[in-house]
Amino acid sequence: MPGPFTLGELAARFGGRVAGDSQTLIRQVGSLEHAGAGQITFLNSRKLERKLAQTRAAAVILAPENERLTGLPRIVAENPYAYFARVSQLFNPVVLQAPGVHPSAVVSSTASIGKGASVGAGCVVGDDVVIGDDSCLYPRVVIYPKCVLGKRVVVHAGVVIGADGFGIAREEGRGAGHWIKIPQIGGVRIGDDVEIGANTTIDRGALDDTVIEEGVKIDNQVQVGHNVRIGAHSAIAGCVGIAGSAVIGRHCTIGGAAMIHGHIAIADHVHVSAGTLISRSLPKAGTYTGIYPFEEHEAWKRNAARLRRLTKGKKNG
Amino acid sequence: MPGPFTLGELAARFGGRVAGDSQTLIRQVGSLEHAGAGQITFLNSRKLERKLAQTRAAAVILAPENERLTGLPRIVAENPYAYFARVSQLFNPVVLQAPGVHPSAVVSSTASIGKGASVGAGCVVGDDVVIGDDSCLYPRVVIYPKCVLGKRVVVHAGVVIGADGFGIAREEGRGAGHWIKIPQIGGVRIGDDVEIGANTTIDRGALDDTVIEEGVKIDNQVQVGHNVRIGAHSAIAGCVGIAGSAVIGRHCTIGGAAMIHGHIAIADHVHVSAGTLISRSLPKAGTYTGIYPFEEHEAWKRNAARLRRLTKGKKNG
Amino acid sequence: MPGPFTLGELAARFGGRVAGDSQTLIRQVGSLEHAGAGQITFLNSRKLERKLAQTRAAAVILAPENERLTGLPRIVAENPYAYFARVSQLFNPVVLQAPGVHPSAVVSSTASIGKGASVGAGCVVGDDVVIGDDSCLYPRVVIYPKCVLGKRVVVHAGVVIGADGFGIAREEGRGAGHWIKIPQIGGVRIGDDVEIGANTTIDRGALDDTVIEEGVKIDNQVQVGHNVRIGAHSAIAGCVGIAGSAVIGRHCTIGGAAMIHGHIAIADHVHVSAGTLISRSLPKAGTYTGIYPFEEHEAWKRNAARLRRLTKGKKNG
Repeated sequence: MPGPFTLGELAARFGGRVAGDSQTLIRQVGSLEHAGAGQITFLNSRKLERKLAQTRAAAVILAPENERLTGLPRIVAENPYAYFARVSQLFNPVVLQAPGVHPSAVVSSTASIGKGASVGAGCVVGDDVVIGDDSCLYPRVVIYPKCVLGKRVVVHAGVVIGADGFGIAREEGRGAGHWIKIPQIGGVRIGDDVEIGANTTIDRGALDDTVIEEGVKIDNQVQVGHNVRIGAHSAIAGCVGIAGSAVIGRHCTIGGAAMIHGHIAIADHVHVSAGTLISRSLPKAGTYTGIYPFEEHEAWKRNAARLRRLTKGKKNG
Repeated sequence: MPGPFTLGELAARFGGRVAGDSQTLIRQVGSLEHAGAGQITFLNSRKLERKLAQTRAAAVILAPENERLTGLPRIVAENPYAYFARVSQLFNPVVLQAPGVHPSAVVSSTASIGKGASVGAGCVVGDDVVIGDDSCLYPRVVIYPKCVLGKRVVVHAGVVIGADGFGIAREEGRGAGHWIKIPQIGGVRIGDDVEIGANTTIDRGALDDTVIEEGVKIDNQVQVGHNVRIGAHSAIAGCVGIAGSAVIGRHCTIGGAAMIHGHIAIADHVHVSAGTLISRSLPKAGTYTGIYPFEEHEAWKRNAARLRRLTKGKKNG
Repeated sequence: MPGPFTLGELAARFGGRVAGDSQTLIRQVGSLEHAGAGQITFLNSRKLERKLAQTRAAAVILAPENERLTGLPRIVAENPYAYFARVSQLFNPVVLQAPGVHPSAVVSSTASIGKGASVGAGCVVGDDVVIGDDSCLYPRVVIYPKCVLGKRVVVHAGVVIGADGFGIAREEGRGAGHWIKIPQIGGVRIGDDVEIGANTTIDRGALDDTVIEEGVKIDNQVQVGHNVRIGAHSAIAGCVGIAGSAVIGRHCTIGGAAMIHGHIAIADHVHVSAGTLISRSLPKAGTYTGIYPFEEHEAWKRNAARLRRLTKGKKNG
């Protein structure tokens, strides 16, 4: 494990300003609650002021406006969370799987695995797949044929990339009501530096490709439909569903369990709150929310009944 | 790859009427946006009129009422999307995995694998499982013991069929508050021509079987609880959850991320909108919706606060 | 298969009182709808009175207040569902996989597998993982390094434990808008007697561990973020998402597809209704609900439009 480093050494490396003893020796990072001797923590929000007062950390990273909330040795930085990330990476260099293909993986002879890339135990990599340099497939990832992953892409266990999209047409006349499958002849293209969480699924395109641009971060159990495009450096939290042919801009954030309708376009720098269903295009940056506020069950029952009668109430009103 | 075919040959095969040059040669299908020389596309909705005007496709499939929207060679058909599906299948015959059991699959000696069926890499097939002729398990599918799949069933990667349902009873008296497991002694029966999307889960029955009738199409990451029955030719979009013992009729469609409560019955030809939670039985065909309309965050905050006070407001009003 | 047993023998073993012929011979359990000769069923709710009248079961377990709803031989017990669970376990002893590590599993040489534990086909168990006695990993479970499972833990197929949490910080200045990864250096600790449903994901902690206390039951496709703590004997239904650092109390129940925001605390004995998003801490036991009531689509459209104008309406009012 690297280190230890003094606060002064950290500031020399990452910027920011030291307040208090710059010789304080740091060996590791820790949480406000559990950091102890030799550990540095961070304060991301003034709401945690009480926890800060109780921390036993050796030092704290915080913003200028919160500098006076503690007497501990500290690093004052504009973006404490990003600063903390860099410090944590210093003490905990990200170690992915060792490069190479695990003997239990099943990799097509026509797949191309980049230099330094790793393919974990039980992975299945189909024909004509391309995996860029230094990418990492954790165990049990399945990549269907003809999908292309960039460099330094990290794919967590259980992910499925390139399964058929949900393309079905309803039959009329003879056989009415039966479904006819639309062949899914597009692929999936994933840019550099994308990370994809466990058990997420990204479908191949129906006609054109499904595209995840560079730097996108996707959490666990996200479903990305066929022909979706996610713009560079957007972040998609867990349990989100993105229906077919939706186009999401760059630098967007989609909160957990939000749902995006198909065939809509979302501008750059849009933030969708957790649990919100977006049913039409959003041409303007901003934060969008649509959550039914929860209440104690009995109060909800009364309000929900009232809500159903809004229209009727108006007529009578 | 089959073809090429002229528009006239396509119409002779699939019906519809050609307008414009019936000798136009078609080699492949494509999207409105990206189709080029030798490619045929389709217009499914008048809303895409502008994209139609810009398409570089060689020909278009569209409905009679939209026939005049373009001067391109075209096939006029009542159901352009289904027509397109058939044309695409002609040019892109669905090729599943090669028949047979992949050497890395683990198949019980008491399982029965039908003629022409394939079991992909890393699949696990339990005791007494039956898989019908020409079915296809993509890689890493797990089928617990005693589940039965019909013919031509397609199961995408990561699907789990027949895991225990969530059957637990809360203990009282001694050990109060602990959960007692209800043994899940039913199985799963899946009809012919069902397709199941990646990472979907279908639980085995608690007492009776969980049943997916013929022709049902299920998208990715759907959760089907124990003892559910889904009627023939219904389609379930991604991220849907269907709780235990719900019965869904035939020819229903359930939109993405909708949730169906347990122990309710839904009639044939019901359509549930995406994101809607269905909390009671629906004895009548129709379309049902329950989505909190999203807004810009600040507007939502005001409205949500008002919503909570509906009851109180009435009292004061 | 054990048995048969008379009603009298069942009551001697599990308590309760027999009404009707105590010599009635029981060979198996069954549902109200499908139980037949030699089978015992149960009545959990008076709402099922009509089904009870039609059952062909040999006997019924029911509560004292429902005793007179049938003339069938019966066992009268305070908690019919829990009683039924015990009777079903008697006839259907839970048989997990045979102990031992399946030859196709990939288990690190530094992992510790307890006595009587089983590791199913295609599982991947990382370095320094500890799996307690008599635990069962069904096929294709992935456990990342340094996670610890207690005794008698049952993990269904496709589960991923210990993947990286979604910890990213947004860069400012140079490289603004890019995401910096926070190393996820915590682990996952899972208590005794926990059961985890198919394709569920439980992330490792960012700094401290993610903790699932003893006796917790988790259904399929649940997402548990980093640093979450779920208190003992809570039950989490399918498709639930629990965001990072949420703390859930003991003896809670979280209904299907509910979502819990990050960094909030939920008291013991809280019940969250299905489909409800909990966005702030709940310091008090009780039942909480927030579901937009569904309607026929046209009625919903009118009401949703009205809802959006609540604020405006007030101004005009």
